[in-house]
Amino acid sequence: MGTVPLLEDDALAPRARAVFDDIRATRGTDFINNFWRALAHDPDTLEAVWSRLKSVMAAGSLDPLTKELIYIAVSSANGCDYCIHSHTASAKSKGLTPEMHTELLAVIGMAMQTNGLVKALGVQTDDAFLA
Amino acid sequence: MGTVPLLEDDALAPRARAVFDDIRATRGTDFINNFWRALAHDPDTLEAVWSRLKSVMAAGSLDPLTKELIYIAVSSANGCDYCIHSHTASAKSKGLTPEMHTELLAVIGMAMQTNGLVKALGVQTDDAFLA
Amino acid sequence: MGTVPLLEDDALAPRARAVFDDIRATRGTDFINNFWRALAHDPDTLEAVWSRLKSVMAAGSLDPLTKELIYIAVSSANGCDYCIHSHTASAKSKGLTPEMHTELLAVIGMAMQTNGLVKALGVQTDDAFLA
Amino acid sequence: MGTVPLLEDDALAPRARAVFDDIRATRGTDFINNFWRALAHDPDTLEAVWSRLKSVMAAGSLDPLTKELIYIAVSSANGCDYCIHSHTASAKSKGLTPEMHTELLAVIGMAMQTNGLVKALGVQTDDAFLA
Amino acid sequence: MGTVPLLEDDALAPRARAVFDDIRATRGTDFINNFWRALAHDPDTLEAVWSRLKSVMAAGSLDPLTKELIYIAVSSANGCDYCIHSHTASAKSKGLTPEMHTELLAVIGMAMQTNGLVKALGVQTDDAFLA
Amino acid sequence: MGTVPLLEDDALAPRARAVFDDIRATRGTDFINNFWRALAHDPDTLEAVWSRLKSVMAAGSLDPLTKELIYIAVSSANGCDYCIHSHTASAKSKGLTPEMHTELLAVIGMAMQTNGLVKALGVQTDDAFLA
Repeated sequence: MGTVPLLEDDALAPRARAVFDDIRATRGTDFINNFWRALAHDPDTLEAVWSRLKSVMAAGSLDPLTKELIYIAVSSANGCDYCIHSHTASAKSKGLTPEMHTELLAVIGMAMQTNGLVKALGVQTDDAFLA
Repeated sequence: MGTVPLLEDDALAPRARAVFDDIRATRGTDFINNFWRALAHDPDTLEAVWSRLKSVMAAGSLDPLTKELIYIAVSSANGCDYCIHSHTASAKSKGLTPEMHTELLAVIGMAMQTNGLVKALGVQTDDAFLA
Repeated sequence: MGTVPLLEDDALAPRARAVFDDIRATRGTDFINNFWRALAHDPDTLEAVWSRLKSVMAAGSLDPLTKELIYIAVSSANGCDYCIHSHTASAKSKGLTPEMHTELLAVIGMAMQTNGLVKALGVQTDDAFLA
Repeated sequence: MGTVPLLEDDALAPRARAVFDDIRATRGTDFINNFWRALAHDPDTLEAVWSRLKSVMAAGSLDPLTKELIYIAVSSANGCDYCIHSHTASAKSKGLTPEMHTELLAVIGMAMQTNGLVKALGVQTDDAFLA
Repeated sequence: MGTVPLLEDDALAPRARAVFDDIRATRGTDFINNFWRALAHDPDTLEAVWSRLKSVMAAGSLDPLTKELIYIAVSSANGCDYCIHSHTASAKSKGLTPEMHTELLAVIGMAMQTNGLVKALGVQTDDAFLA
Repeated sequence: MGTVPLLEDDALAPRARAVFDDIRATRGTDFINNFWRALAHDPDTLEAVWSRLKSVMAAGSLDPLTKELIYIAVSSANGCDYCIHSHTASAKSKGLTPEMHTELLAVIGMAMQTNGLVKALGVQTDDAFLA
């Protein structure tokens, strides 16, 4: 699969190489996953996505593992296989246990089910829920 | 809106009334939101969904607030306005602060963006991510 | 709402008027719902969609009511409120009973749930299921 | 693919084994498809999904084949490849003919098309369609 | 993968063969991609889809390459891998440069992101945007 | 609707006010649409989204109007009503004619239809389409 070739390290433009260097330093590993190798054709987007991702996924009011669970939830609803696999791996590296994983899956399944029911029923939002 | 009328309390079948009683007792409020009033035409599904929801959303390895965040994430990706509003209200009642809310939104936006990029690029899953 | 104005009968181009005439004759009612009034700005697409819809939704190996159920299912997954409402109304006019409606909803909810679980689990298709 | 390993029979917890026994007895085959083997890590969800699925997909006001068509429709809109394949196989075992299959596909395609048009046009729901 | 076998040329019904002939003549190549071979089981839908596609994707107020970009955008949001790959190939044959491709991807990512933010925020449409 | 209140100008934090100033200067209008007023609770995301949007939607290898069409296409597939309305208005201000609009809609409808057919058929990607 793939609509662009994956770029090997020796094919990177200088700005893309700098992003790869930062990914490696930030993650403490030499491994660069395919998403970045595909995105590396466009140093602008590569820089923008990586820099924003690093900031958004960092610890804040929500911890990094919780953020990975949210990421997996969105990716599951959207059916992005790659994203599900990469962020499940990332969540495991941040402490996701098998018990947490099964609970995450149960909530995703539950939300999908009621999303479908609500839409098919055309339920109007209660006034109590509006900000 | 609505493909079925919302059922008032005096129009409920006995099994639906029992579910409403349990919703009220569990939540400690007399308020029943529209989703349950729309679903009440079908006591089977009403019972199944409520009973499973109560179990799935309870504290476990993940806390109830984290589960609400996951629920909102799925509902946002699916574009279920009702679900987003009802579960954001529920999350607030379970401790969601404005700071947590903004971080939740930022992660949802980030995941949506990379979901789209990954799909358009057709990125193949790295072997390292397979269980 | 609306990204284009809805066209009244006296604003129709001749080819659009001919399609409206055929909708009225086919359905045996003077009522033209908003979708067609919005689409009428483009007689090409209006003709193509109406003519294909009439053919696809007609009785064949599947009866017209079953086809409406399939239509509602797709529209619910896609979150198209208008389509859900219009095709639920259409299904009712073709014999959808409240019992059938509740079963339709239960199946939609079930499918949504397992769709989410399957995606989050990244389940590989069994060889037995390939044509 | 897969975010969890598929469980073989000898790795099942007792409650998961009981569900597998019931799947085999209900379907009259020894074959257990991958979805259940992935879900078996979580006996709670396995039990809840299987037991609800068995009830929801049984004959009622809608026959089992019609329910499979609805399932395929939802799964196609959601892009769940596994679900499309498994429920198309199931539909075939319940009597889906090639003629019915082609009509199902035509309706799915039609619904997808008008879903997209309606959304892009922002069509407001006609009062006549509200319950 | 596949819920139907792909039809080889010698298995085509006469009406399907005629469509294949027209695809070959229109595109100036003997190659028929898998989509048409899967759709060929149903000459009605094959004819309707091909004939409408040829008309819709032809040069008009929008040029053919712009139409391919729109097609890729929809397919990316829907997660249709096949469609993304086939229409990216088609776009390249119509002049898509690597620079245009990276800009297309950036816009898709941006739109996905704000779609998610808007939905999670439940933003109400400004009056200024209504037609 | 809304999960957060829309912020009026006098409720903005300094960094949010600076973004609003730049939106007004860039667009040459005093009008700020609801999306930015909802996002303004989070100056980080407001800055990041606006600054990236301004860069991504600017003229490059693709012209600004083409980029708006791509944006509308993604938003239609995702069913983001707000985004469809705001970017259709934006496209009109950049030269979208009624003829171009109808062609855009026809392509969106076509892509939605074949996305659904391809998924329901489970068509495997042709080797010829892989980069």
